[in-house]
Amino acid sequence: MADMDRLRQQMEFILELDKSKGIMRQTYKSDGELKENDAEHSWHLAVMAMVLCEYANEPVDVAKVMAMVILHDVVEIDAGDTYAYDVEGHKDKREREEKAAQRIFGLLPKGQGTRFQEIWEEFDEGKTPEAKFARSLDRLQPLMLNDATGGKAWREHGVHETQVRERNPREDYGADALWEFAMTNYIDKNVENGNLIRDGK
Amino acid sequence: MADMDRLRQQMEFILELDKSKGIMRQTYKSDGELKENDAEHSWHLAVMAMVLCEYANEPVDVAKVMAMVILHDVVEIDAGDTYAYDVEGHKDKREREEKAAQRIFGLLPKGQGTRFQEIWEEFDEGKTPEAKFARSLDRLQPLMLNDATGGKAWREHGVHETQVRERNPREDYGADALWEFAMTNYIDKNVENGNLIRDGK
Repeated sequence: MADMDRLRQQMEFILELDKSKGIMRQTYKSDGELKENDAEHSWHLAVMAMVLCEYANEPVDVAKVMAMVILHDVVEIDAGDTYAYDVEGHKDKREREEKAAQRIFGLLPKGQGTRFQEIWEEFDEGKTPEAKFARSLDRLQPLMLNDATGGKAWREHGVHETQVRERNPREDYGADALWEFAMTNYIDKNVENGNLIRDGK
Repeated sequence: MADMDRLRQQMEFILELDKSKGIMRQTYKSDGELKENDAEHSWHLAVMAMVLCEYANEPVDVAKVMAMVILHDVVEIDAGDTYAYDVEGHKDKREREEKAAQRIFGLLPKGQGTRFQEIWEEFDEGKTPEAKFARSLDRLQPLMLNDATGGKAWREHGVHETQVRERNPREDYGADALWEFAMTNYIDKNVENGNLIRDGK
């Protein structure tokens, strides 16, 4: 007989996470009309993990990558989304998110909550092959959507090519092929066509 | 050196799947204001797979369950969402979805497309422990959201308790504890409080 109090606690966590569907990001979906939310974004990263795992520089445990991308943004239920190019917002991002992780993963039964928080922390620290690869996907996906929408979010925020290049260094990508693809097809191209503001060389 | 044509084909599949974010379901998100879409729903099921896998009747490969729930609704990009209690819509559902699977998974490089289509078919057939468990989550999640929103979607569609009970038979659930939890907390309770139409006994 299952422990129904434990299950009730787990269902409360699952229901709480529904709020991720209301945490809006700055990136537009491919139709260029609506911005995506954290749940949609995280689902898209899970698809990417499945499709693109062959490009990871080091062999990765795909299940772990999927767990990471599914959970990586749930802290934003409390901490909110910080736009990639928001300098002010990034100053206390880590602190806000750490506090959120304590509360949100704390809703789960203790052992499980700790395991989930460790997955989130591993992603956040970005040191293991799985975390590096997962973080590459998290950067690649908005580049893809910005390209698909004529750089709509970039244009609205007046984003410069240097900002995008600095956020997407080759050494941070856990996947050289994905980095090369992104440079050519999403960044160089959108500097060329004016969707990203060109910086002096 | 990676095969850039292969990668381009894979990125086109990933971009095509973005359309899942615009395929609306009948279930409301927990705030009771907006209906959820396929991408949000599938992400939520992936969270549930991670949290609830301990309740599967038979041991399951969680990574496979996650892959199934991430992909299970992408055929609706072509075939549209068929509401659980739409009798007419269910008549040609299988045929519409099979055709959609051919086109959508056909966007991927051949071997990978075949593997993805097999995952979708395994879910659809519901015979393996992973497929049974994944399908339980797919039924449990809207029950949870209906309960959280005072039965909003059920009320709008005039859903009867018998319809919900017939769609949620114990033997189809790959997880007895989840079935019991759902009966008590989501179905009996919402018959009692009038969110589901009570049928004569």
